Amino acid sequence: MAVRTLKVDEDILNANDKLADALRSRFDASQVFVMNLMSSPGAGKTSVILRIIEALSSKYKIGVIEGDIASDVDARKIAKSDVDVVQINTSGACHLDANMILAAAETIGLDGRQLLIIENVGNLVCPAEFRLGENVKVMILSIPEGHDKPLKYPLMFTESSALILNKIDLLPHTDFDMDELRKTVTAMNPGIRIFPVSAKTGEGVGGFVGWLEEKMTGA
Amino acid sequence: MAVRTLKVDEDILNANDKLADALRSRFDASQVFVMNLMSSPGAGKTSVILRIIEALSSKYKIGVIEGDIASDVDARKIAKSDVDVVQINTSGACHLDANMILAAAETIGLDGRQLLIIENVGNLVCPAEFRLGENVKVMILSIPEGHDKPLKYPLMFTESSALILNKIDLLPHTDFDMDELRKTVTAMNPGIRIFPVSAKTGEGVGGFVGWLEEKMTGA
Repeated sequence: MAVRTLKVDEDILNANDKLADALRSRFDASQVFVMNLMSSPGAGKTSVILRIIEALSSKYKIGVIEGDIASDVDARKIAKSDVDVVQINTSGACHLDANMILAAAETIGLDGRQLLIIENVGNLVCPAEFRLGENVKVMILSIPEGHDKPLKYPLMFTESSALILNKIDLLPHTDFDMDELRKTVTAMNPGIRIFPVSAKTGEGVGGFVGWLEEKMTGA
Repeated sequence: MAVRTLKVDEDILNANDKLADALRSRFDASQVFVMNLMSSPGAGKTSVILRIIEALSSKYKIGVIEGDIASDVDARKIAKSDVDVVQINTSGACHLDANMILAAAETIGLDGRQLLIIENVGNLVCPAEFRLGENVKVMILSIPEGHDKPLKYPLMFTESSALILNKIDLLPHTDFDMDELRKTVTAMNPGIRIFPVSAKTGEGVGGFVGWLEEKMTGA
């Protein structure tokens, strides 16, 4: 059948890429490692971040930038820990862009900071197109979303260095096929690391945190 | 903190609205009732559609338009039933627009059709901004996504006539607060109808199907 393809606005993407390059230089100069965390709504980004803070906040100075269309629900959860947090409200925009991060990085401050975690807007599509000057893109797929998602939303799975499979505590109650998921994802992105975790129980979190620390320290 | 707001492209939205009006006239002329079904990835749009088909396909001539960025996974599931299905691949675009529906409606055919179900791209943000000439917008929130989603993604909850709360079979395994969800959603959209269902077990599906049939027949 006839399919019309909406053109991605090349000008917007090019402008964002330039700004992302400048941001990356700035992050490198401050020696801060930046992780851009992406997923669908409700996959568990904030819960995973709270687990990372629990594991690493005694060793490193961490900051979190929270991206949401509206509300500061997540920022208030993070603020209960001892790390700095800044909320971005995008007023309808479906993803964060480098310009928003520039403003937020100024506010949170980079001096002496070692890890900056950016929680993107909950969206399995648009955030994957916009670089934020990050060192690594990490995505979460939660078990109840189903193992067929890589086929339907390929870009984020291709762009990410690590895939966290969250909510494995719900595995017994779903028909999620872990082997099928691994096969599909590694065919699309052979270098991706896959970490099954439960942010709720803590299971598997250590594996991901170990990987993140290796990336941070270049080990 | 300083927040930059990306401008919604008014020209794109205006052009879509005009086309959506034309589509609606065309649907009305053919006396076909059109439902635009939206949700996050993996909330259960296809499973709910299969339940609607099971309940109504002996009484009405149904067609389904499947919107996905890539793949025809969902269309193949629908094609196992006895209804007509057309797949749209958006090649990266994060939502369906009226122009895509125009092409798909031509292909599937409107003559004698009584119900056309449009499964939008899995995305809790962008699809809510684009009218497709539909009679009703219906959205799904699945229990594992959490009860805080209306605060964070308000537009779709405001735009929808009905909210299907899917995967209630997982309620015992989550901390989903049904009262909190109802309170938040009805404060934003007092007229919205809320239907807790499990597309997996069939529980609660009848209530939604009854509402849909009322809307279709103007009862």
